Amino acid sequence: MKITASAPGKLVLFGDHAAVYGKPCLVTAVDLRFSTTVEPLDEPVVEISTPQLREQGETYRVQRDAVSARNRRETAFVEAALRQLIDRYKVTSGFHVDTEGPQVTFGLGSSSAIAAATLVAAAQQLKLEIDKREIFDLVYAAVLDVQGTGSGVDVAAAVYGGTVYYVNRGDMIERLPDSHLPIVIGYSGSKVSTTNLIGDVARLRDRQPDFMHTLLHMLGDMSVQARDHILHENWQAFGDLMNIHQGILDGFGVNTLQLARLIFAAREAGATGAKISGAGGGDCMFALAVESTRSSVTEAIQQADGTPVDIATGADGVRLETTSHKA
Amino acid sequence: MKITASAPGKLVLFGDHAAVYGKPCLVTAVDLRFSTTVEPLDEPVVEISTPQLREQGETYRVQRDAVSARNRRETAFVEAALRQLIDRYKVTSGFHVDTEGPQVTFGLGSSSAIAAATLVAAAQQLKLEIDKREIFDLVYAAVLDVQGTGSGVDVAAAVYGGTVYYVNRGDMIERLPDSHLPIVIGYSGSKVSTTNLIGDVARLRDRQPDFMHTLLHMLGDMSVQARDHILHENWQAFGDLMNIHQGILDGFGVNTLQLARLIFAAREAGATGAKISGAGGGDCMFALAVESTRSSVTEAIQQADGTPVDIATGADGVRLETTSHKA
Repeated sequence: MKITASAPGKLVLFGDHAAVYGKPCLVTAVDLRFSTTVEPLDEPVVEISTPQLREQGETYRVQRDAVSARNRRETAFVEAALRQLIDRYKVTSGFHVDTEGPQVTFGLGSSSAIAAATLVAAAQQLKLEIDKREIFDLVYAAVLDVQGTGSGVDVAAAVYGGTVYYVNRGDMIERLPDSHLPIVIGYSGSKVSTTNLIGDVARLRDRQPDFMHTLLHMLGDMSVQARDHILHENWQAFGDLMNIHQGILDGFGVNTLQLARLIFAAREAGATGAKISGAGGGDCMFALAVESTRSSVTEAIQQADGTPVDIATGADGVRLETTSHKA
Repeated sequence: MKITASAPGKLVLFGDHAAVYGKPCLVTAVDLRFSTTVEPLDEPVVEISTPQLREQGETYRVQRDAVSARNRRETAFVEAALRQLIDRYKVTSGFHVDTEGPQVTFGLGSSSAIAAATLVAAAQQLKLEIDKREIFDLVYAAVLDVQGTGSGVDVAAAVYGGTVYYVNRGDMIERLPDSHLPIVIGYSGSKVSTTNLIGDVARLRDRQPDFMHTLLHMLGDMSVQARDHILHENWQAFGDLMNIHQGILDGFGVNTLQLARLIFAAREAGATGAKISGAGGGDCMFALAVESTRSSVTEAIQQADGTPVDIATGADGVRLETTSHKA
């Protein structure tokens, strides 16, 4: 019996970079799903097939007891998730694992989604009942096992879905009531290393500790208020905070001219607010555009050489797929 | 006997917009001088000739007792300065006043400079001995008479010259020891109304009082630290603060895409820091470029469709010109 689970990508709304320092942030899950299909194996072996490995004509096999985040880059998140499950539940069987993901992710993709889908599909295969919080804890542990560091906000989006208010490495994870976020996403067409950007901000914080402390704290406070503005659909205030937040990210040195072009274009076309999503240096911005300005903002992003990304926000968190095939 | 005085324009370095709220700021006088030549008249009349009026073939005459900031837009700062002097010193004579200024000012010009030059030339004509502080107070009063509002930082630059640390409407005015500022100025080629921009920031402050309070206060604190960094020639830290400051101004909504282009170009060419000078919405940015990067930064500004402005900073404050002609 094959079991498939899928998990969504993420768009960070507020608290980008501040989340690294444990500050509150807001993230929404995006309907760009990564899925993992797990079959049982009788041997104590794990076979992993990823899009990248399939392209290379390879299926990777590893002894169950040797499964580790550090074996191969291509399978690190899958192995890390299985490792958590194997250790926590003294798993004795083996697995065949197939992962799938969208070819184009606009920087909204998420290794956490792959880890979450893997963990949930394998747990279901083992008939384990695990609640969201435990899924989060295991997936976050897996992500830390691979990366060494990380706020866990992308794990929260992958596991809980919807729009999530998230504080300090999961101290608080609140999925907000479902509601439509009136945003337009624009892809800037390029990307630099998130790790480098986080390092740049850390070094600026070392050089300017007082100002950076205040600003990072402020981004956390903005997330707190932005949460309220979502709940009350107070979009003017939400947009004001987006713009101030964007300026602070620019001050951190993570803005780019191309992101700025999309942001200015969106505002000129009527967006109440516009900002980078995530670490910056490329990837996506998003604009707050109520229905009447939605098409003009979308067009403005296109005319500024951006790619409007028409992907639903507030997507479901990790879930079993009912389309699973019989073995 | 004709007497001529001249006063410099200004480039705000730190605390832009924050100065409006009384926060500390830093300004440097630029060698873009406005001059006023004053001759005595026997009648109780003031004749004023400005470049604009001369172009229209007009000399404007007004009874000395009717001199007012509110008579004409073209002569408002000249009349306001004379009004201060007439009232303070019970002046009984009349004046003929000629003003001159650079044709192209790159937004570095200053009505305060015209008022300062007028006041000093007229005072000299009356053989009054007035110290810098009183000149500042009278010129600032004149500027407020015209504008109704204003931080007075441009008055401080016009009167004191050099690089000035300035707090809360002149509560503290400190001319820093002369030193070379390693900066490159770039003109963005456009301008919107400073008054509108100050109003936009005020409205954002009304909507987001807590965050704006913190940010405006922070810009003041940055000015305090930037003053120290100038004194110790700590340019790395000065540049870091410029970049953070720029981000906060961007968050206030006073950045433009063209200013952003010049700022990103300057940084990519090696500038340690780059930011808007003044109210934003156009006008100038400046970049911190030590000698080794000076030419590459200048070129980068040009290639980003900006105009490098080769004008010396730390210029003399208001002064009598020795080239005065005999009547």
